[in-house]
Amino acid sequence: MKLVTYRLGCHVSIGAVEERGVIDLVPIAPDMLGLIAAGTEGLDRARAAIASASSPIPLDSVTLLAPIPRPPRNIMCLGLNYAEHAKESAAARGREYKQYAHPVFFTKATQTINRHEGAIPFDAAVSTQIDWEAELGAIMGRSGKNIPIEQADDYVFGYTCLNDISARDLQANHSQFFKGKSLDGACPIGPWIVTADEIPDPHQLHITCRVNGVTKQDSNTAQMIFRVPDIIAILSRGMTLEAGDIIATGTPSGVGFARKPPEFLKPGDVVEVEIEKIGVLRNRVGE
Amino acid sequence: MKLVTYRLGCHVSIGAVEERGVIDLVPIAPDMLGLIAAGTEGLDRARAAIASASSPIPLDSVTLLAPIPRPPRNIMCLGLNYAEHAKESAAARGREYKQYAHPVFFTKATQTINRHEGAIPFDAAVSTQIDWEAELGAIMGRSGKNIPIEQADDYVFGYTCLNDISARDLQANHSQFFKGKSLDGACPIGPWIVTADEIPDPHQLHITCRVNGVTKQDSNTAQMIFRVPDIIAILSRGMTLEAGDIIATGTPSGVGFARKPPEFLKPGDVVEVEIEKIGVLRNRVGE
Repeated sequence: MKLVTYRLGCHVSIGAVEERGVIDLVPIAPDMLGLIAAGTEGLDRARAAIASASSPIPLDSVTLLAPIPRPPRNIMCLGLNYAEHAKESAAARGREYKQYAHPVFFTKATQTINRHEGAIPFDAAVSTQIDWEAELGAIMGRSGKNIPIEQADDYVFGYTCLNDISARDLQANHSQFFKGKSLDGACPIGPWIVTADEIPDPHQLHITCRVNGVTKQDSNTAQMIFRVPDIIAILSRGMTLEAGDIIATGTPSGVGFARKPPEFLKPGDVVEVEIEKIGVLRNRVGE
Repeated sequence: MKLVTYRLGCHVSIGAVEERGVIDLVPIAPDMLGLIAAGTEGLDRARAAIASASSPIPLDSVTLLAPIPRPPRNIMCLGLNYAEHAKESAAARGREYKQYAHPVFFTKATQTINRHEGAIPFDAAVSTQIDWEAELGAIMGRSGKNIPIEQADDYVFGYTCLNDISARDLQANHSQFFKGKSLDGACPIGPWIVTADEIPDPHQLHITCRVNGVTKQDSNTAQMIFRVPDIIAILSRGMTLEAGDIIATGTPSGVGFARKPPEFLKPGDVVEVEIEKIGVLRNRVGE
């Protein structure tokens, strides 16, 4: 299923996107976090609702919101999880490349969440180095601690496209990544969550990023250093992961700050993240 | 006021701690985040409730919970915000000390929140380098973005003692601080929030940390490099801070990993954070 949070008039709801339109799923759960909490029973009821739905809503008559408009805590992210990107980042920062033996985790604040077609705020007084990062987002379906790697797949609810918008000047100035990664609207996700059953192998997905139609990142999730089960197993050691948690799995090479000369987003630019089997997440940089 | 979240039997409530006992404040707001959201009017009503209360509850008959048991997003923290601590950290890591021109921000996940007298989980399979960090915690009382430094004090609801428990092995291995700072129960706060009106100068407070009664950290918040108004102004640039946000303002020198030889917490140890005008936050390391 392609699960969305959408607005129709002043009504916010959850639904499933089908060829014929959007099937409302609010009778099953009030919002996406509620549907995730309802587990496999919730998904079974959603499938039944889709099968019996007689009057889908045309997709172009609704506004898609972020599938999880307000996560219950920060988005957890991996840095440097594609070797080619780790190399380009080291070169751009004038550092020697070394392969990290352990994943690099940081977070983005909750108010970074943005929707498909939402404007990415731009304020030159805050940052003039706004950069793109196409990423596969994994959504946790169950809570757990010390999750064994061989069971980790069972904890994934689904996947989405995610753009880890990064203010490179702030990221470098503040040493730790949090501030440069946490400007308002700096985490577009969507347009929907594709449930895990439809993506049996999340490490065979073509992933691209385009800016104004020009391809900037072009890779495959097969290139990840730490894969989704590794990430869940390592992150959950001593630390409870929760249903609804969003994990950004890292970006491939081709980001702006590592280009020669460096490139950054400016007002009016359109940035698209496309992931095979999921879709296209499109955002315009605002004034 | 000293504001608490407490449990009496199976009932969780908020209250104010006075000499004569705890005054229940649930008629004013259902929980601490609700009281914070009620703003100055909520605090005025709380003061009136205290003045007219006739039957306080004995403090020793309630269990104090963390004043904010579940924050709506990650705790935001400063690293290396006392010069002597930044120097000891650099020496312990074999790095040259440099004064950071910009504050170092990272986060602790929400499930780190722990209560006064709560056990700090210990799992040698996860980390054997559990360390203490006494810190002044500031609680945001209003939401805001691009907050001018001269108005920043108006955004603070109050202050609490905070222990930024850190797994040094994980912190070093994972490069960014998040994972090593985010083990379950690794952020005791409390015992209460002292409202900002009772702490006119948060930068003249004696701050200490004791382990099994032995003083390990002994400093004053006057030593902070970036002060509370700086922190709020810089953190809120392009990034909305929210009422109820918890900000950990950094720790003074005397942490375990920088000692010669290094010292770490072990099961049974009792760690206390004491801050002048606030109180003592005490935790035992669990099995």
